[in-house]
Amino acid sequence: MISLDDLKALARPAQTKIVLLVMDGVGGLPRAFDGKTELEAAQTPHLDALAVQATLGLADPVAPGITPGSGPGHLGLFGYDPLQFRIGRGVLEAVGIDMHMTERDLAARGNFCSVDAQGLITDRRAGRIPTEVCARLCGLLEKIRLPGAELIVRPVREHRFVVLFRGEGLEEGLSETDPQEVGKAPLPVHAEASHAARAAEIANRFVAEAKKILAGEQPANMVLLRGFSKYPKIPQLTEIYGIRAGVIAVYPMYRGLARLVGMEGLSAGDTVADEFTALEKHFGQFDFFFVHIKKTDSYGEDGNFDGKVHVIEELDRELPRLLALKPDVIVVTGDHSTPATHKAHSWHPVPVLLWSKWCRPDHAKGFSERECRFGGLGHIRAAELMPMIMGYAERLAKFGA
Amino acid sequence: MISLDDLKALARPAQTKIVLLVMDGVGGLPRAFDGKTELEAAQTPHLDALAVQATLGLADPVAPGITPGSGPGHLGLFGYDPLQFRIGRGVLEAVGIDMHMTERDLAARGNFCSVDAQGLITDRRAGRIPTEVCARLCGLLEKIRLPGAELIVRPVREHRFVVLFRGEGLEEGLSETDPQEVGKAPLPVHAEASHAARAAEIANRFVAEAKKILAGEQPANMVLLRGFSKYPKIPQLTEIYGIRAGVIAVYPMYRGLARLVGMEGLSAGDTVADEFTALEKHFGQFDFFFVHIKKTDSYGEDGNFDGKVHVIEELDRELPRLLALKPDVIVVTGDHSTPATHKAHSWHPVPVLLWSKWCRPDHAKGFSERECRFGGLGHIRAAELMPMIMGYAERLAKFGA
Repeated sequence: MISLDDLKALARPAQTKIVLLVMDGVGGLPRAFDGKTELEAAQTPHLDALAVQATLGLADPVAPGITPGSGPGHLGLFGYDPLQFRIGRGVLEAVGIDMHMTERDLAARGNFCSVDAQGLITDRRAGRIPTEVCARLCGLLEKIRLPGAELIVRPVREHRFVVLFRGEGLEEGLSETDPQEVGKAPLPVHAEASHAARAAEIANRFVAEAKKILAGEQPANMVLLRGFSKYPKIPQLTEIYGIRAGVIAVYPMYRGLARLVGMEGLSAGDTVADEFTALEKHFGQFDFFFVHIKKTDSYGEDGNFDGKVHVIEELDRELPRLLALKPDVIVVTGDHSTPATHKAHSWHPVPVLLWSKWCRPDHAKGFSERECRFGGLGHIRAAELMPMIMGYAERLAKFGA
Repeated sequence: MISLDDLKALARPAQTKIVLLVMDGVGGLPRAFDGKTELEAAQTPHLDALAVQATLGLADPVAPGITPGSGPGHLGLFGYDPLQFRIGRGVLEAVGIDMHMTERDLAARGNFCSVDAQGLITDRRAGRIPTEVCARLCGLLEKIRLPGAELIVRPVREHRFVVLFRGEGLEEGLSETDPQEVGKAPLPVHAEASHAARAAEIANRFVAEAKKILAGEQPANMVLLRGFSKYPKIPQLTEIYGIRAGVIAVYPMYRGLARLVGMEGLSAGDTVADEFTALEKHFGQFDFFFVHIKKTDSYGEDGNFDGKVHVIEELDRELPRLLALKPDVIVVTGDHSTPATHKAHSWHPVPVLLWSKWCRPDHAKGFSERECRFGGLGHIRAAELMPMIMGYAERLAKFGA
C-alpha cells in the first residue's frame, strides 16, 4: 500500500467535494427463504441507479478473515492501515463518549465493581448500577487529588466509566487491575516498561483513594481499570490531503473516531433525514464529509433482518438530497459486515460503491454484495479506498515524471 | 498481511472442524482440442454442487509469477508467508523421507559421486546407483565417528541421501562441496560466517572419512554435500490458533511439511479412498485436517492430462464421505498449478473453494479456474487463506473494539 508520506507528497488542492456515506455493518448474508442479503432485499431505486454509473468493489476492513471492531473498521475507511494504527481500549471508550483528549492524557476504561469485607470481588459490574448512579460516583472520584496530574472521570453507561489522567510523563505500558474473576482482589497496576513507572504510581494512588471514597457505597464500592492508553498520534487528514473534513454522525463514538484523524464534528440531529439536513447546511464549508448511519449495524446485531432492510431503504429515500448537492465523489459503503443472520460484526468483505464523473461505469444491476464482486474496484483493503477517493477527486498529482 | 502474532492474540477456542483438502498441482491450463482445463474436463458433480454454495477465489502460492516448490506451496496454504519462512534444501530432503529432526541437527543433502585417481569428479551422480546400493553405503557412512556430534545418514533414492549432524553449536552458513562440474575436485566446506566454523570442521571431517571408507567402492567412491540447513523455527499451528491439527498424506514429504508446523501425522494408507477412511477414523480427534492428494501433480508433471482428470474424478467420488462428516469449514485447493500441458509446476494462480454455513454463496457453475475468477474470495495470496479459514470457523475474536 502507498504510504501516507507518499500521499502527502502527491496531494494537491482542488475544488472537488467528497461524501463518504457509511452504513455501519451494512455487509450481509443471505436469509434462508429467498437467499437475499439485506441489501438485496431492500428496495433501493436510488442506490441502484447510482450503482449503474458507479464502480463497485469489495473491501476487507482489516485483512481477510478478520472481524473488525468499530475503531479499526473506521480507521481503514479513513485511509489508515488498522494493523499499523491501533487505538487503545481506554482511548476508544473516551472517544465513544465524545471526550476531548490531549497529548498529555492517559485514558483508562473503568468498571465500578463490588468487593466484600476482605476486598475480594463479588461482582465485576456492581450489579450494572444505573447510569445516573455511575454519574454521581464519577463526580465523587473526580474530587481525588493526584500529585502532578489532573483527573477527569466521566460516566459511560451502567457500571462503565472513563478516567483521564492528564499530566506530563504519563506513558502507556500499564497492566490492568481487573483479575477477570470474582473471589479475587483487584490487582495492583504495574509498569510493564520503566517509562510507565510514574503512570503506574498515579493510577495506583487513584485506585487507593477511590477505594476509600467508595467504602460506604453499595453495591459499587470499588473500581477496576483496564486498557490504559494514550491518544494515538495519527497524521491528520488535513496534513495528508490538505482537505477540510467534517463528520455527521448521530452517535458520539463515530464523531470521536473521526476527530482522531482531524475531522470536525457537525451537529447531526437524531435521524437519517436530520443527517442529510446537516449535510445540506454545511456543504459549502468542507471538502470531505463522512456521514455515518448507525442503525444498519444495531439491527444487524439484534438479528433484525427487516429492521436493517428498512434503514437501508430510509437512507435510499434520502439519497436524492445528497445527489442534489452534486458532490464530485460519492462513496457508499460500510465499516464492516454485520449480517442479521450472524447477529454480530463479521469478517465478510464489505460492498463499496464509488461514483464520480471519472468512473468506468460497471453497469451493475444494483448495489449488493453480489454485484460488488464483479466491480471495477476489485477486491481491496478498506485503507486503499481513501487514495482512490482522492484520485477520483483529482486531488493527487502524478507520481513520478 | 496480518502477522502471526496478531492472529495468535485473536485466536479463540471453538468446537468447529476444518478440512483442508489439497489436490497437489491441481491448477491447470486448457487443452488444445476443446479449451478445457483438467478441472473443467473432469466430471465432478459433488465438487460442483459444493461450489454453488461456496465462496471461490484464486490464490497465488508465493507471489504473482512465482512458481513454487512443494515446500513454499504448502507453507503458504498453512498460513505462513513463504517469502518469510524458508526451508533449507537439506531439511526439505530430510522432511521428504519423514526423518524426525531436532533443534540440534544440521541437515545436508548428499549425492554419491564418482571420482578418478586424482580425486576429480567423473560423474556427479555415480551412474545413479540403485537405491539398495545407496542404502548399503549410507550404512557404511553412519559408522563414521565425529568429535562431539552424532551422525545419521539415510538413503533417499538412487544416488541421493541425507546426513544429519546432531550436536551442540552446529550452525548454518556453510558452503557446498559440489563444484557442479565434472573434472573438478569436490570443494572443501567453508564457514560463511564465524559461528559456523565448528559445523564446517565437522562436515569436512565427515567428507574426509567418507572418502576413505568409499575408496574401494565403484562407481560411488565419494560424496558431495549441499544445502546445509537447520530445522526452521516456525510458530506451530497449535500455538497460533490453539488447534489440534492432523495430516493425512500418502507421501512422506507432505507429512514432513505438515509436521514442520505442528500437525500430527496420521496413517493414510495408499489410495484416495484410504485417505478418506483415515479422515473418518480420526475425525473426532482433531480440529483441523490437512488431506493431501498427490497424483494430480504426478500426472501433471508427466503431461498426462487424462490421468490428472481421473484423479480429480476419483476425489470427487469420495467427497460425499467427507461431507457426511459435516465439517464446519471445507477448503478445496492446490499448493500450486501443474498444468498437464506444461509438464511442470507453474506460476499460475490456484483455484480455491471455501465452504461454510457462513459463506456468501457465489452460485458458481462449478469448481474451475474460470469460475474461481469471479468468486467472492477474490484474488489472494495463499497465506491469507488460513486467517480466512479461522474466521469462517469462528475461531478469531474481533480485532479492536
